[in-house]
Amino acid sequence: MPKIPRDRDDDYGAAAIKARQDFVREHTGSRVEHQASYSLDPSTLPGNIENFYGVAQVPIGLAGPLLVNGEHATGEYFVPLATTEGTLVASYNRGMKLCRDAGGVTTTVLDDKMQRAPVFSFGSAREARDFRDWLDEHFEEIAAAAETTTSTGKLVEIQKFSVSKLLYTRFNYTTGDAAGQNLTGKATFAACAWIKQNYPRELHFLLEGQFATDKKTSVVNMLHTRGKRVVAEITLPAALVEEQMHVSTDKLFSARLKGQLGSIMSVTNNNGNHSANGITALFIATGQDVANVAESSALYGFSELLPNGDFYASITLPSLIIATYGGGTGLATQRESLEILGCYGAGGVYKLAEIIAATVLAGELSLGSAVVAEEWVQAHDDLGRNRP
Amino acid sequence: MPKIPRDRDDDYGAAAIKARQDFVREHTGSRVEHQASYSLDPSTLPGNIENFYGVAQVPIGLAGPLLVNGEHATGEYFVPLATTEGTLVASYNRGMKLCRDAGGVTTTVLDDKMQRAPVFSFGSAREARDFRDWLDEHFEEIAAAAETTTSTGKLVEIQKFSVSKLLYTRFNYTTGDAAGQNLTGKATFAACAWIKQNYPRELHFLLEGQFATDKKTSVVNMLHTRGKRVVAEITLPAALVEEQMHVSTDKLFSARLKGQLGSIMSVTNNNGNHSANGITALFIATGQDVANVAESSALYGFSELLPNGDFYASITLPSLIIATYGGGTGLATQRESLEILGCYGAGGVYKLAEIIAATVLAGELSLGSAVVAEEWVQAHDDLGRNRP
Amino acid sequence: MPKIPRDRDDDYGAAAIKARQDFVREHTGSRVEHQASYSLDPSTLPGNIENFYGVAQVPIGLAGPLLVNGEHATGEYFVPLATTEGTLVASYNRGMKLCRDAGGVTTTVLDDKMQRAPVFSFGSAREARDFRDWLDEHFEEIAAAAETTTSTGKLVEIQKFSVSKLLYTRFNYTTGDAAGQNLTGKATFAACAWIKQNYPRELHFLLEGQFATDKKTSVVNMLHTRGKRVVAEITLPAALVEEQMHVSTDKLFSARLKGQLGSIMSVTNNNGNHSANGITALFIATGQDVANVAESSALYGFSELLPNGDFYASITLPSLIIATYGGGTGLATQRESLEILGCYGAGGVYKLAEIIAATVLAGELSLGSAVVAEEWVQAHDDLGRNRP
Amino acid sequence: MPKIPRDRDDDYGAAAIKARQDFVREHTGSRVEHQASYSLDPSTLPGNIENFYGVAQVPIGLAGPLLVNGEHATGEYFVPLATTEGTLVASYNRGMKLCRDAGGVTTTVLDDKMQRAPVFSFGSAREARDFRDWLDEHFEEIAAAAETTTSTGKLVEIQKFSVSKLLYTRFNYTTGDAAGQNLTGKATFAACAWIKQNYPRELHFLLEGQFATDKKTSVVNMLHTRGKRVVAEITLPAALVEEQMHVSTDKLFSARLKGQLGSIMSVTNNNGNHSANGITALFIATGQDVANVAESSALYGFSELLPNGDFYASITLPSLIIATYGGGTGLATQRESLEILGCYGAGGVYKLAEIIAATVLAGELSLGSAVVAEEWVQAHDDLGRNRP
Repeated sequence: MPKIPRDRDDDYGAAAIKARQDFVREHTGSRVEHQASYSLDPSTLPGNIENFYGVAQVPIGLAGPLLVNGEHATGEYFVPLATTEGTLVASYNRGMKLCRDAGGVTTTVLDDKMQRAPVFSFGSAREARDFRDWLDEHFEEIAAAAETTTSTGKLVEIQKFSVSKLLYTRFNYTTGDAAGQNLTGKATFAACAWIKQNYPRELHFLLEGQFATDKKTSVVNMLHTRGKRVVAEITLPAALVEEQMHVSTDKLFSARLKGQLGSIMSVTNNNGNHSANGITALFIATGQDVANVAESSALYGFSELLPNGDFYASITLPSLIIATYGGGTGLATQRESLEILGCYGAGGVYKLAEIIAATVLAGELSLGSAVVAEEWVQAHDDLGRNRP
Repeated sequence: MPKIPRDRDDDYGAAAIKARQDFVREHTGSRVEHQASYSLDPSTLPGNIENFYGVAQVPIGLAGPLLVNGEHATGEYFVPLATTEGTLVASYNRGMKLCRDAGGVTTTVLDDKMQRAPVFSFGSAREARDFRDWLDEHFEEIAAAAETTTSTGKLVEIQKFSVSKLLYTRFNYTTGDAAGQNLTGKATFAACAWIKQNYPRELHFLLEGQFATDKKTSVVNMLHTRGKRVVAEITLPAALVEEQMHVSTDKLFSARLKGQLGSIMSVTNNNGNHSANGITALFIATGQDVANVAESSALYGFSELLPNGDFYASITLPSLIIATYGGGTGLATQRESLEILGCYGAGGVYKLAEIIAATVLAGELSLGSAVVAEEWVQAHDDLGRNRP
Repeated sequence: MPKIPRDRDDDYGAAAIKARQDFVREHTGSRVEHQASYSLDPSTLPGNIENFYGVAQVPIGLAGPLLVNGEHATGEYFVPLATTEGTLVASYNRGMKLCRDAGGVTTTVLDDKMQRAPVFSFGSAREARDFRDWLDEHFEEIAAAAETTTSTGKLVEIQKFSVSKLLYTRFNYTTGDAAGQNLTGKATFAACAWIKQNYPRELHFLLEGQFATDKKTSVVNMLHTRGKRVVAEITLPAALVEEQMHVSTDKLFSARLKGQLGSIMSVTNNNGNHSANGITALFIATGQDVANVAESSALYGFSELLPNGDFYASITLPSLIIATYGGGTGLATQRESLEILGCYGAGGVYKLAEIIAATVLAGELSLGSAVVAEEWVQAHDDLGRNRP
Repeated sequence: MPKIPRDRDDDYGAAAIKARQDFVREHTGSRVEHQASYSLDPSTLPGNIENFYGVAQVPIGLAGPLLVNGEHATGEYFVPLATTEGTLVASYNRGMKLCRDAGGVTTTVLDDKMQRAPVFSFGSAREARDFRDWLDEHFEEIAAAAETTTSTGKLVEIQKFSVSKLLYTRFNYTTGDAAGQNLTGKATFAACAWIKQNYPRELHFLLEGQFATDKKTSVVNMLHTRGKRVVAEITLPAALVEEQMHVSTDKLFSARLKGQLGSIMSVTNNNGNHSANGITALFIATGQDVANVAESSALYGFSELLPNGDFYASITLPSLIIATYGGGTGLATQRESLEILGCYGAGGVYKLAEIIAATVLAGELSLGSAVVAEEWVQAHDDLGRNRP
């Protein structure tokens, strides 16, 4: 049975990489010619990937300028979107123009926290309840134990959900410019070790009781925030919408009401249109953990038709998990995307949150209008790979 | 206000691309040195992206061999995973070894359909009900109208959901080796045009009533399938789990029960661990529409502790949206990944579905065990970017 | 240890009942003076209750007339509401007046089915898939087997939900004027026995796999109907609302938008106000199985603010489980309530469905308006037991 | 158009009641002979019902003794169940015997709170965020304002959920032995009035933003408790289950696993069997607001098969809304039921919560076993109105 070559001394060195490329050529049907073509420096990769042998080249298109009236992002931004889906960049670009001509998107970061969610189990419900009280009484010490493992993470709250003889918890942290999933895992593990040592009675714990729902969307994360909670809002003049989107705002609103009920009946985590498109394209471009699209694309939309016919639109992303430091953000092309947005490194994460939210809103307005104007299929026909 | 350069005659030509790269350099804080380094041929990009100026280089690691006992995938596969999250490739690799030593993963494709979901509105509930009956009576003609626009798509069923004076529908198609979102959009638009012309009374429709929940996870898609519905299952000997995962199967099962309840209480679309990780890494590598991770990562897990202590584990992916043809699958590095898996082109899509499901199961077992064995944090400390 | 007296020969006879009343007096702190006061004839109770010893007297108030423009209920109805919640009857009455003055409530029954939902388990996903196909091929024989046990029930469809090595099904029946839960249980048990006997390979089944969600609300029942699916709709003139409800329709609509988002975020089975109030009061009065309020109170609301300021309101009850025959419908006071509504006995069930839906709509409008007009608390203060 | 007779001076007097009975006789198809037969004193009814004219007689059966090892309920209880569903009392009785023979049900009240949930709206997300901070800073004053209206209610926390330019809140109170929905409505209205007067900027509020989900089940109420959060748990010896229920505990557990997945897929608020049955029967008997069954029947079940084959079973009711004071609890027959349970009046509400939880657990075990033992249909055939 063939084994993937590894070099314990220098697994990111040229020889180990070449050995794996040859291995792929020998044992599979690909010559990996393009995957082996990259400009990134493999010595930057430890901590980001194992068994590295090449890269995926994902094309990036530029959209914008996106006019953002945020507290962290202010002014015009050009947005790099990495995707292979035709129409996507064009559609976001169209929405960005609409927003720009309406005075820009107002963005607001509402909340910021990251979780790890241990579950504690006991011999009875009463023991679990006793422990719940004990947790409250020892919060300071638990926080201190957690924070021994991290200089940037801070434990701010332990949420508690009682059921049967179990206590599910959510350890909520702030994590600076890092996304913080690893940091919170390590800190919570230290906290649990302290708890286990100091709790006067027997207890068992699992570091994750599926109440942080890492990489999984959930109601609890939408209600209580995971990562950043950020809003983008705008009021669009009726005439502008008519002119650029070819729909009246009352038709747009009527469609929204029906879409809303459809969302309720189908039970989605997202009563909008396609937030995942913009978020994914930005996540790939900027080195985010793209798997977090599963939860980061969750969206609450809220719109109003104003008495004068103007259209108020807003989207709230309740569980946007991003970083401008750590993870993939420092890799060659990913860092360049963050530099394009002026978000690279410490202090950039709220700015990035605002730009993403504004981008998502632009995309919602563009697609939402296209469906009502019946231009959607044509656009994909023109720009996409809609082969018969 | 600066405008992104475009060239109507040759927007994918070297000059247009160079102009945009210079534009980025001039108007943003990045030199786009690495993004401008790629081996793909931009002339292949029309239909995949607009305003192209460079690429994201996403590192790929190799995992495997993954032993699959499928109906379409049979034998050992090496799996290219594109990610920037340390530990991911190592963890999937560990799970693949466990599965291989247990005899391989059995995979089964259960269903295959793609939707577009127009909503029809009327003056009253009774009119909507009349239309519902009419739809049934005219299915053949509607299907014929839809299929005028496509050679591979076939309309197989129209699901109907009545509420108020509205009729929400789901037009269900088979779409061959394409993912089919554009195809079904175009076909359904043609069907709606036919309906509008032929229905004897007034009706209004919106091509999407949020009942297909494209790019959004939903209960309706999990119940009724979107894309492929595919199962991966395995029975793991207790001794093997103990030896390789350092946990007893009864502890593993007990943890699963608690995780299950956590999933129910937090209300996720996924009672497993981290399917999004493997799916995203495979989606980026193989040129899938990565935004579909939002819905494709939905998962139903089902496990049993057998009387002899062995552990039956299964995952069902109810809404896995993939293609081996069209979209980004033909791009340079993406095609190479499909070739590595032997899935490129016509006829490969079920094989790919099975490989993805098997990969997901391997990853579930690895992470699930690491949490119970309390090795999870250490692994991320060793392999990840878990900086304090 | 004291044992509740029973009389195997005549457990509904005066002696047995008296023995139990004495038993209660002796072993508990109550004299059961009022519970022992009833006019119903205990000989009618077999099939409705065991260990009978007395009654709960639940006060009934009269509301109406309720003007219904249904297909089964047409004209004015007086509605008996059994409740102990002050304000309830007055509030429904207020809504009924509004609806009457607006021309009445239009009601439409959209669907009618009752389920039992066996789950079948196999050795592998493929075996489960094979069985799924077999079920389709043998539908006629299975229906025949099911229908041997019933003269009114008819098996119309078997829905199938595949996951892991299991096949969850929903056996959908029409059940005439009976609610049909017992009927479908018995019929499906016969069907399963036939299946077990005739399926060429081994299978296991559980008669209920929690996919009918009897006595439990669920998305699947809301999407696919359990019991009756019935709509009530009305268009309210703006001036009438202003005059009677003391709110403008645009304020009412604006409140509805916010309530809608609240419903989405809190994840309810009901984006209305208080359907359970009217439904429960009618269920107690008319001898329905009141536990079904859990699922029958599920509601989809849909409203529009029309260009002229009028207000279109509708509610859809997707899982209203009712009967006018069988169960408690024939008991003394319960039958009288059905007679008041003209719904007693065979042929009345759709009429009852329409009256209930119209009642619910009236109550939604009354409470919805009271919240916006800030009259709600005052009303409860005046009419309820709002003691400090 | 006939109008229901009312007497403004003495609407609960004999004359007014008689007038309404005659009115019913004249205008409908019923003689209301039995409804007019009651022993309750109508002068006790103000605050409970309007337009009173008669009663529903709902038969009560006695179950028990139920052995409860609670903190508030300890010892054996006889439980009055008001229902018209045959088999129900017998089935609960059977479960109570099983529990008694296993040593009794251990019950624990975990939490206690009641909500009203105003939504506040602003001109922008930032204004809403400012208000959120202001709320925190003024909690003491707001609580004082709320508590001016009540001597028993105490505002303990305001939960805040940010979205768009809105702030949804949940005002959480303890309410003593009252259920507290009216009390919290009035107190929160006073709080909102104080807020409106004292907040330095413009704000709008709706007293209910659908985040308390009164009379509607919701995830937020299941996560965060509405009413009492109470657990019942028991460990059943394998031999006892086999002997009394005719099933092995491993079959019971295996069935539970499948039911669990069915619950997840159908998306219920209740992964148990039929809690609504017992709760409804107890609610009618004891004068609870029966409409609350919609939310009170929500249930989290958690079971384990112990290494020795014994079966640990528990149910948690997260939103059980009950009272032993106020509402219908003081009416003639209702009070008698509370006296039977020793729960009438001040101080009884936790005891009642424990008895209800224990009853529910008994019923879950009985029905759960009957399904597995295939005795369920037969039982309904013997005891129910399962006419063909």
